[in-house]
Amino acid sequence: PQSKLPDVGTTIFTVIGQLSAEHNALNLSQGAPNFSCQPALIDAVAQAMRAGHNQYAPMSGLAALRHALAAKVEAIYGCHYDADSEVTVIASASEGIYSAISALVHPGDEVIYFEPAFDSYSPIVRLQGATPVPIGLSLEDFSIDWDEVASAINSRTRMIIINSPHNPTGAILQQQDIDRLTALTRNSDIIILSDEVYEHVVFDGHRHESMARHAELAERSVIVSSFGKTYHVTGWRVGYCLAPQALMEEIRKVHQFMVFAADTPMQVAFAEALADPQSYLGLADFYQHKRDLLVTALQGSRFELLPSYGSFFMLARFSHFSPLSDDEFVLSLIRDHQVATIPLSAFYHHNQPTGLIRLSFAKDDETLYEGARRLSGV
Amino acid sequence: PQSKLPDVGTTIFTVIGQLSAEHNALNLSQGAPNFSCQPALIDAVAQAMRAGHNQYAPMSGLAALRHALAAKVEAIYGCHYDADSEVTVIASASEGIYSAISALVHPGDEVIYFEPAFDSYSPIVRLQGATPVPIGLSLEDFSIDWDEVASAINSRTRMIIINSPHNPTGAILQQQDIDRLTALTRNSDIIILSDEVYEHVVFDGHRHESMARHAELAERSVIVSSFGKTYHVTGWRVGYCLAPQALMEEIRKVHQFMVFAADTPMQVAFAEALADPQSYLGLADFYQHKRDLLVTALQGSRFELLPSYGSFFMLARFSHFSPLSDDEFVLSLIRDHQVATIPLSAFYHHNQPTGLIRLSFAKDDETLYEGARRLSGV
Ligand SMILES: CSCCC(=O)C(=O)O
Ligand SMILES: CSCCC(=O)C(=O)O
Repeated sequence: PQSKLPDVGTTIFTVIGQLSAEHNALNLSQGAPNFSCQPALIDAVAQAMRAGHNQYAPMSGLAALRHALAAKVEAIYGCHYDADSEVTVIASASEGIYSAISALVHPGDEVIYFEPAFDSYSPIVRLQGATPVPIGLSLEDFSIDWDEVASAINSRTRMIIINSPHNPTGAILQQQDIDRLTALTRNSDIIILSDEVYEHVVFDGHRHESMARHAELAERSVIVSSFGKTYHVTGWRVGYCLAPQALMEEIRKVHQFMVFAADTPMQVAFAEALADPQSYLGLADFYQHKRDLLVTALQGSRFELLPSYGSFFMLARFSHFSPLSDDEFVLSLIRDHQVATIPLSAFYHHNQPTGLIRLSFAKDDETLYEGARRLSGV
Repeated sequence: PQSKLPDVGTTIFTVIGQLSAEHNALNLSQGAPNFSCQPALIDAVAQAMRAGHNQYAPMSGLAALRHALAAKVEAIYGCHYDADSEVTVIASASEGIYSAISALVHPGDEVIYFEPAFDSYSPIVRLQGATPVPIGLSLEDFSIDWDEVASAINSRTRMIIINSPHNPTGAILQQQDIDRLTALTRNSDIIILSDEVYEHVVFDGHRHESMARHAELAERSVIVSSFGKTYHVTGWRVGYCLAPQALMEEIRKVHQFMVFAADTPMQVAFAEALADPQSYLGLADFYQHKRDLLVTALQGSRFELLPSYGSFFMLARFSHFSPLSDDEFVLSLIRDHQVATIPLSAFYHHNQPTGLIRLSFAKDDETLYEGARRLSGV
């Protein structure tokens, strides 16, 4: 029998990571910090293990962590989620997205998402026998054309996948986006799957438009977020999912069979970490400094930088000085300049050439300076 | 829209775990140790975290761990797997099973499995638009009736799920099972999904019939195993998957979107632990002692114990002294005798009454003695 995903290869992050290693390149590709987390977080995991927290957690997550999350979400976004039935600890945001789509999208359904997009959405939808409906973001400012969304919605539309702050572009949703989304889905049973893993990484005083801030949307939303991005430990596979009880019941049916439960000692440590709001509220400033450093250091270069309002990422245009495709250009940067980035085309199902590359600034300052130096030599 | 899994509730392990806690019962239900792992293993995780191993691992797993696994499998079972393309580190055996079924089973396919069965197989198959085909094991000795398998196989049969040592019965595959399975699947493209999480827990000098011991079967098998069961850390979500390259390519396509990668510091620690073969070769004796302790301590009780040849589990018959259904009986044990077990009926899709309960002996000796004392009061 043929492949169920004939057009899917290895994720771009793996491909570029390997190329980068082979050419001994400086890696500005993946959204994974090259600096360490707070030592106290490591100590908390070690202590949890020594205290014997090494066996299966409840499939919904440790109660202490679910309660800490419900309290945090209520404090920041003003939305009440019941810690027992509406909050689930997941084994990475990836797992939460996979569980939610598997549980809620039926064969024949359509799922709207926006391109450029994280590369897992479309294959997961197709594995359900459902149809992904990609809508292109404006190549100018990566905003959503809501009229196009309105035309795409029909009786088979089951889900709209939203991601703000946006990977790979650094765009963020605005109040007017929320208004259009609310109006378009009012009185429908369309579910919003909101990928908010960069919720604490929003710059310049903008605010994160979590679905949890907007009561009407929250009622039909599944929110997925991650501890890995917030606490600089992307290799600790723990995240969380928020949804109204009726949706959460379905998601948990799948989650419990997909991974049973998330890692126990890490859950103990994150429950403790959440007790200090500064552990996540300080993140925006931390990454804004890195964004600004990179922007400043690239000022003499030939790249045109696009504004990044959030996330770990910034786009850089090269099309005005190079005729290469995104892929070819990224390859030439790795080979000839020893710096790895991600071609924006990789975030389109048709590998559409854009003349843009994605830079990750989730790196220590020295790496950012050296990366900018190498890019300035292009 | 309705549920995609209308008949699925919360897993039995969660339900019984909660009841057990409410009634302050001694917990002989889940296959999770109540004793601790080797302190050196915890130290290895702590050291890995302090050394900075906290970011995304490669989606296929850390190279050191994949190579250690390939070496181990070759040494024990004599089968060569290429560490780069045929070994994948998974985020729990559950995730490996989910990934393998999602990647390889197409809508309309049939998947044969044996009941009683671990509760995830059937829902995962149904979520692919495929049909689970349960075949009952003999209620005498839980052996497989291969003639029944032969009649069930047809052109739509895509996969046979095997689990030895068997959860929940403690049965193990014999050479004659291997012979029949080999003959029945010869020249077909039927895939064997072999759940071998209890591979190192086989008693009385029997040997584990891994698919990796049998070259012809290995060619069409996906083997899934777990570190959690072997190293007494069921809450650390790491396992491994072995398959020929053509199958593994498809599994990785799904795995990379399901969880991206398994937990990094735990992978470092398991790679180190595998360097000492005694860390897994001693497990059979360790658990055989526990099985024997429980059998001896239950000798004066009214239960009829069925032989357990492997796994963490043993079945006990109550039907000759109680007319209750499995569920009712387990409930009465929790309420009236403060001891939690699992009704065997929970491992059947029709919740078939069997007059049997499952006891887990993955507990410290004191708990096993006290559990036996309570069960002897029935
Ligand atoms: C599993 S890759 C997650 C996202 C990320 O780090 C990236 O886009 O680079
Ligand atoms: C996620 S439950 C795994 C298996 C087990 O521990 C059990 O059967 O009790």
